[in-house]
Amino acid sequence: MSLLASSMDWIDISAAVCPETAPIFADDPPVHFRWAKQIAKGDKDNLSAMDMGLHTLTHVDAPLHFVENGTTIDRIPVSKLIGPARVIAVDPSVDVIDAAELRKHDFAGSKRILFRTRASANNWLYDREFHKNYTGIAPDAAREFVKAGLELVGVDYLSAEQFEAKQAPTHKTLLENNVLIVEGLDLRNVAEGDYTLIVLPLKLAGREAAPARALLQHR
Amino acid sequence: MSLLASSMDWIDISAAVCPETAPIFADDPPVHFRWAKQIAKGDKDNLSAMDMGLHTLTHVDAPLHFVENGTTIDRIPVSKLIGPARVIAVDPSVDVIDAAELRKHDFAGSKRILFRTRASANNWLYDREFHKNYTGIAPDAAREFVKAGLELVGVDYLSAEQFEAKQAPTHKTLLENNVLIVEGLDLRNVAEGDYTLIVLPLKLAGREAAPARALLQHR
Repeated sequence: MSLLASSMDWIDISAAVCPETAPIFADDPPVHFRWAKQIAKGDKDNLSAMDMGLHTLTHVDAPLHFVENGTTIDRIPVSKLIGPARVIAVDPSVDVIDAAELRKHDFAGSKRILFRTRASANNWLYDREFHKNYTGIAPDAAREFVKAGLELVGVDYLSAEQFEAKQAPTHKTLLENNVLIVEGLDLRNVAEGDYTLIVLPLKLAGREAAPARALLQHR
Repeated sequence: MSLLASSMDWIDISAAVCPETAPIFADDPPVHFRWAKQIAKGDKDNLSAMDMGLHTLTHVDAPLHFVENGTTIDRIPVSKLIGPARVIAVDPSVDVIDAAELRKHDFAGSKRILFRTRASANNWLYDREFHKNYTGIAPDAAREFVKAGLELVGVDYLSAEQFEAKQAPTHKTLLENNVLIVEGLDLRNVAEGDYTLIVLPLKLAGREAAPARALLQHR
């Protein structure tokens, strides 16, 4: 029997989607919910709809986000989205995760790495104000990830890119090499260490990204 | 080590969300995607947004869908969404899954049951026409599920309810007893038998349902 089936100790690292508190990256589309039916108004059921950008809070970027004719989110193999992952805690004072910062941490042998940064320390995924001074990943670190054969990199704020890096070299380096990027992970309650990750984006046909639910389990 | 981490044989039972082919239940909100940015139009990236009902294709109903002040989708324990599940194949000729039909099948000991019906045989999740003659679940079968202590019932078309049952007795019986309902599962490639199910709805704060990604693994 699968250990999975008997283990209930999943840590939910998905940010709850709430229009009142969700920070939105720069000029990305906002989040709206609306009731189409409401029991309180005499309808037989509660039924609602959502309107939001695909990069809202916890989500996965597919290569198409930055690569013309790149793989779309519905074509990402499930095997990349489920498996061992290492959580690395970066000090809240760190402005950027570059190759020098990486040398302070051990990620040898990991196929999936998630970074806990100042965003988790400051609860920024639940602060409507968009904080440009989040901890991004520098292009030299992205090249290290490609060299190491990583399949997935995750961060705890809305982008893996440094805000000022308008040409998005980190995204391009990762996505051109089919390294998935997971953004908006709620790592506030997660200690550094090794886990099993499940991150499942919606299966949106032909799109460049999708909101996702993400869980960790201790290994 | 978790078997999960080493096993790659997941069957994706999520229906791909495609506005051109997605059937919509009765007068529920339609599905729209729009590009906010496109590389082909000179933008630096591809970035899009979605507008859709929360009951589009593969999704999970929380109690709030039919129960005032019922549990919302973001509060469903993950332990209900992951674990052993049995797939039961119902003959395409069957109009309704009632207590009499249930007696032809073995679901003893299952906490989660998924029904494969004529919808899978006919590819209806990828047929834009809404088919009212899908195989629903009768209230007497819903009562059997509650008595058996089921945690989750899944179906392969857009509703677990018989289309003509306007008062939704099956939904009410299940949701009032905190039995989750998963609808819109793509079971075309799934044989009857025992599996491990992972179904992860988006974590939409305070809402009655959410689109989901769902996977099965052989046990």
